[in-house]
Amino acid sequence: MTRTSIDLNADAGESYGAWTLGDDAHLFPLLSSVNVACGFHAGDPLTMQRTVELARLHGLGLGAHPSYPDLPGFGRRILEAAPDQVYADTLYQISALAGMAQAAGRRLQHVKAHGALSTRAWTHAPTAAAIAGATRDFDPALPLMVLPATLLETEARRLGVPVVLETFPERAYLGDGRLAPRSMPGSSIHDPAEAARRAVMMATQGRIEAIDGGFFEFEVDSLCIHGDNPNAVQIARAVRDALEAAGVEVRTFAAPA
Amino acid sequence: MTRTSIDLNADAGESYGAWTLGDDAHLFPLLSSVNVACGFHAGDPLTMQRTVELARLHGLGLGAHPSYPDLPGFGRRILEAAPDQVYADTLYQISALAGMAQAAGRRLQHVKAHGALSTRAWTHAPTAAAIAGATRDFDPALPLMVLPATLLETEARRLGVPVVLETFPERAYLGDGRLAPRSMPGSSIHDPAEAARRAVMMATQGRIEAIDGGFFEFEVDSLCIHGDNPNAVQIARAVRDALEAAGVEVRTFAAPA
Amino acid sequence: MTRTSIDLNADAGESYGAWTLGDDAHLFPLLSSVNVACGFHAGDPLTMQRTVELARLHGLGLGAHPSYPDLPGFGRRILEAAPDQVYADTLYQISALAGMAQAAGRRLQHVKAHGALSTRAWTHAPTAAAIAGATRDFDPALPLMVLPATLLETEARRLGVPVVLETFPERAYLGDGRLAPRSMPGSSIHDPAEAARRAVMMATQGRIEAIDGGFFEFEVDSLCIHGDNPNAVQIARAVRDALEAAGVEVRTFAAPA
Amino acid sequence: MTRTSIDLNADAGESYGAWTLGDDAHLFPLLSSVNVACGFHAGDPLTMQRTVELARLHGLGLGAHPSYPDLPGFGRRILEAAPDQVYADTLYQISALAGMAQAAGRRLQHVKAHGALSTRAWTHAPTAAAIAGATRDFDPALPLMVLPATLLETEARRLGVPVVLETFPERAYLGDGRLAPRSMPGSSIHDPAEAARRAVMMATQGRIEAIDGGFFEFEVDSLCIHGDNPNAVQIARAVRDALEAAGVEVRTFAAPA
Repeated sequence: MTRTSIDLNADAGESYGAWTLGDDAHLFPLLSSVNVACGFHAGDPLTMQRTVELARLHGLGLGAHPSYPDLPGFGRRILEAAPDQVYADTLYQISALAGMAQAAGRRLQHVKAHGALSTRAWTHAPTAAAIAGATRDFDPALPLMVLPATLLETEARRLGVPVVLETFPERAYLGDGRLAPRSMPGSSIHDPAEAARRAVMMATQGRIEAIDGGFFEFEVDSLCIHGDNPNAVQIARAVRDALEAAGVEVRTFAAPA
Repeated sequence: MTRTSIDLNADAGESYGAWTLGDDAHLFPLLSSVNVACGFHAGDPLTMQRTVELARLHGLGLGAHPSYPDLPGFGRRILEAAPDQVYADTLYQISALAGMAQAAGRRLQHVKAHGALSTRAWTHAPTAAAIAGATRDFDPALPLMVLPATLLETEARRLGVPVVLETFPERAYLGDGRLAPRSMPGSSIHDPAEAARRAVMMATQGRIEAIDGGFFEFEVDSLCIHGDNPNAVQIARAVRDALEAAGVEVRTFAAPA
Repeated sequence: MTRTSIDLNADAGESYGAWTLGDDAHLFPLLSSVNVACGFHAGDPLTMQRTVELARLHGLGLGAHPSYPDLPGFGRRILEAAPDQVYADTLYQISALAGMAQAAGRRLQHVKAHGALSTRAWTHAPTAAAIAGATRDFDPALPLMVLPATLLETEARRLGVPVVLETFPERAYLGDGRLAPRSMPGSSIHDPAEAARRAVMMATQGRIEAIDGGFFEFEVDSLCIHGDNPNAVQIARAVRDALEAAGVEVRTFAAPA
Repeated sequence: MTRTSIDLNADAGESYGAWTLGDDAHLFPLLSSVNVACGFHAGDPLTMQRTVELARLHGLGLGAHPSYPDLPGFGRRILEAAPDQVYADTLYQISALAGMAQAAGRRLQHVKAHGALSTRAWTHAPTAAAIAGATRDFDPALPLMVLPATLLETEARRLGVPVVLETFPERAYLGDGRLAPRSMPGSSIHDPAEAARRAVMMATQGRIEAIDGGFFEFEVDSLCIHGDNPNAVQIARAVRDALEAAGVEVRTFAAPA
């Protein structure tokens, strides 16, 4: 694999009313895509509108970032919602952002599940199918951004939803290819240089280095930076600089798999 | 004016989770259009989806019914939101319903502001402009349903938004053409026969009878029945029967003014 | 065991703003205790205040009924909240109702966890300890109403919280003493006469009949009627009449275990 | 008037879940009282519990800070709630914080209305009476902190609620004694030295300097610092230092008027 470009995405629009989270103004110039909170874990409508506008100014691909309805928990707590509830909640949030994008002369580029909704979909097929189904029913050509080798990828492919595969240069991986849980020491990588090194390996070789020293390999479409990390801007800058130095352009995915 | 058809609309989808409000199943067969709650005063996403489906089955025109964010107050309390907040909240709600409609193979027919948001827009131009602007920015061809002779009509026309004029056969009007406030005795008409008589006069003559015995006249595009009234179904049936007996078909508006 | 009185409780105050649920006005005269929703799954503050007043008029024991924060799901969906969140949420809700009771010249009689919060506490010790700990820290003498033979009972006893044991005359039990899940056919008993028969056996013999025909036995302090069932009033009346015919007075528990 | 001590208060606990607002850790050592958000505009239960604990560590007087239910608007938007809704909402919030304080071995010191609820109560007697009534019904000895010469003070006194009078050293006043609206240039004083000068004049002379150069005079019980200002800590430090240099101890009010 000789990749000449890769997408760099981050969660965005995670403020809410009087509360600010993340540094979108400094992070956006370094990215090619954003996943925008849709009101269920963050992102009141005015914040969403401003985030759409900021993404437009920077020419970023616009993704809906649906969540469980959980403002006090920021969508990070699994909620045993029924699949038809997950479907309707996901469709509602995709639609809300898509309409705000439309009013700004933009179109949605992708969908990516947030937090605990995403985590549950990795291992719970009905939840995964609900998310993928809502994405497809909104627009059959709209890609779903997924972690590879999860039930969310499986269900998306089964339902014919285009998928965009993402990895996390600043997160550790277990030997079986799963993300190391946040509770494990060393699960987050705070050193920008190390994150940049991993990002280049992911982009140029499609190789993910695991905690046990092994590797697993697949085609990566997008790299994700966590926008709520205190040093997110430094990490994004290091990753972007390293990618460009390695001859890999940061550019949004054009034709998802 | 010799009207051969008129629209008959009601608010719908006003349940929320475990709570049921209104009798949509019995009311829908009598209507031609519905205004669907979008989650801010009622209507969780699953309720919205089911309401869209029920409206599809009955061939009803589908309207978004945006509100202030006020679940405990059912959107009936004025909230002094800034115009940019009203704009974003309205656009968000229109978009959410439009996307759910799209997933069901339907399109939005109109927008109608709910409760206190509507009341405030009658006399507060910035709120009216925010609602009309959000409707236009979502889709310049999408009509806004308004009470005639209000600032909401004025602002909608000023911004080039198509308007649909509605009246209330079961509500009393003051001599100056305004709706009698709900706190005034006699402001609501509970007798189906009287509501039907008024509906026919509105549809066939464009005449609204005021509480002081006077009349005022204008072209009426739609008649509204309050779906949360205990006898809403009886009133709707009496109105529909009387209209048809008078040679006026109940049919959604085709080409708004 | 020769019981001469037993408590009869039901969930109450489950309306919210414009939405009504349950028939508290007809159910309260038949009960001796109520579990009042505290705003997280139902029960806006005005509904809570009115429920406290109605309970006062009927001389009912007043219980706080804390829930996960989940209005659209009515608190019936498990939320993987951290124990410190469950503790704070529970303490907040107990406190809110206790203060409203205090303003009405009343005191809390007990605490009972609602819906999914209760279900999770049956098998998840940290959640159970959080609920029991919040109850104890609010008032060490305040009893917690629990399903027997669950981790919630275990943790309450371990933390020194007085417990009130309840059973459900209108719910089927498995052979191991657990409640039959709602998804199992026959898990709910809709026949008032059958519910009454089971209630009398529970009260007079401390015997719970299981689905497999077996029995298990323990001292029962309170019988619970589900107030959101369509025929809750009929069941409560049948249960109460049968208890009184069997010489068992319906009276709130005085001195919990 | 020769005041030897005065209370210094600030709003606190205004974070919510993943969102942080204010710098309570650095502000609390400078204060004698705090007004703690109760969940309706900010302050989820876990944040409330932590704020109660931090206030306990610093020996601060604990006040409930009830608001309109408006998370996206941070309680800063007037909501035309009915007086019985305001009463119940206020009582609910006071109770919630009082119970959390009780669990930590503390008692409420006072109540202070937040944001738009407070602003509306200055000029709308039914709202003022609802707030004062809820405070009294919770505990007749619990003081309400009020802006002098408002309907909120009037109604509190009429209902026999103890009042604590507060002024704002960092806010400009109009010639008639009212606070200059935030939209007026110069309405906020950002210079710590100037705020400190005004604070000393308020505390030692009971004199408030108006924008037109005039003065009005009354006994001041408490000075308020806005905790959400970027330089709140510097202002609080300057005010405290200047008060102490002038021989006025910063100490919570003991016996309110």
